[in-house]
Amino acid sequence: MKTEVEKKKESPSVGVSGRKIIYDKDGKPCRTCNTLQDFQFATQGGSVAPTFNVKKPLKKNHPDTTSTDTVAGGYTKDQPPDVEQLGKSSWTLLHSVAATYPETPTSKQQADMKQFILLFGNFYPCWFCGKDFQEYIEANEVQTATQDDLGKWLCIAHNAVNKKIGKAEFDCNLWKQRWKDGWEK
Amino acid sequence: MKTEVEKKKESPSVGVSGRKIIYDKDGKPCRTCNTLQDFQFATQGGSVAPTFNVKKPLKKNHPDTTSTDTVAGGYTKDQPPDVEQLGKSSWTLLHSVAATYPETPTSKQQADMKQFILLFGNFYPCWFCGKDFQEYIEANEVQTATQDDLGKWLCIAHNAVNKKIGKAEFDCNLWKQRWKDGWEK
Repeated sequence: MKTEVEKKKESPSVGVSGRKIIYDKDGKPCRTCNTLQDFQFATQGGSVAPTFNVKKPLKKNHPDTTSTDTVAGGYTKDQPPDVEQLGKSSWTLLHSVAATYPETPTSKQQADMKQFILLFGNFYPCWFCGKDFQEYIEANEVQTATQDDLGKWLCIAHNAVNKKIGKAEFDCNLWKQRWKDGWEK
Repeated sequence: MKTEVEKKKESPSVGVSGRKIIYDKDGKPCRTCNTLQDFQFATQGGSVAPTFNVKKPLKKNHPDTTSTDTVAGGYTKDQPPDVEQLGKSSWTLLHSVAATYPETPTSKQQADMKQFILLFGNFYPCWFCGKDFQEYIEANEVQTATQDDLGKWLCIAHNAVNKKIGKAEFDCNLWKQRWKDGWEK
């Protein structure tokens, strides 16, 4: 029989990053919910020092990926994106969607945008992030009446996540400079 | 009166990257449809050498951004994402969505996924990329019956874009290793 210490080692609750390890319903570590380092640490039962996880970009235009080898067609063997890459990619997309949303949308465009944001939370690859986002939407209705309303709503939603994970909050009066028009001189 | 040469200089048709410059309906260069270099080149009327566009990462965790200064809260003055950053972010999200889509989805989950992909093309920040994607969907129905169907459909859709922009195509038999499970040893 396994001791409690052995069991704990097999399913560590905290990763090398200091973050809580998130597991899927089947008890396996969730790849899209943890950093790559923490996921690999938990997959190895918390018993292997994660020295093999150091990011070393192979290609100039793949600075975000951890690569070990190339496959046919010249593609690098990039690992599936972790929770941080997914977060960064998704906010980039969402803020840009707001930046190109009509300034005076029709009722249909407003309904479509609400539906899009809802489905986004529903299908988000990190299940616990998506659940948080859906709860946020329930408590804070998506604002779609104008482009500025949507952009500000997203900025405030992003700040709620930033606050939760200890990141600096962004001044939402500057959202258009950051995501639409570029910075004033 | 302006000469033809002057007019052409003001609205260049080809950017410094060699790509066609994409304009919005109002005649202004489209920020989300061009590379940052080409956008800045076209905004300056094609008359300024784009020496100020060299990417120099300021922060270890912002390797993808062009930064010039910091604003309150420690945020760098990152420029709005260009067509390449948007493309990379969006494919990262979409392939990961497929990787976490149920293996045997319900009818509702299938209908929701079709709706999500449709709205994605509709609201995509680069209007001409979104239009291409919508036309692709019309000609090639989104496959949502299983996780593998969706993952392969997306991989093939991504390859259609890769082909168009001269990038290497990916072997879609490997989509799960790239986007879901990681590479086999």
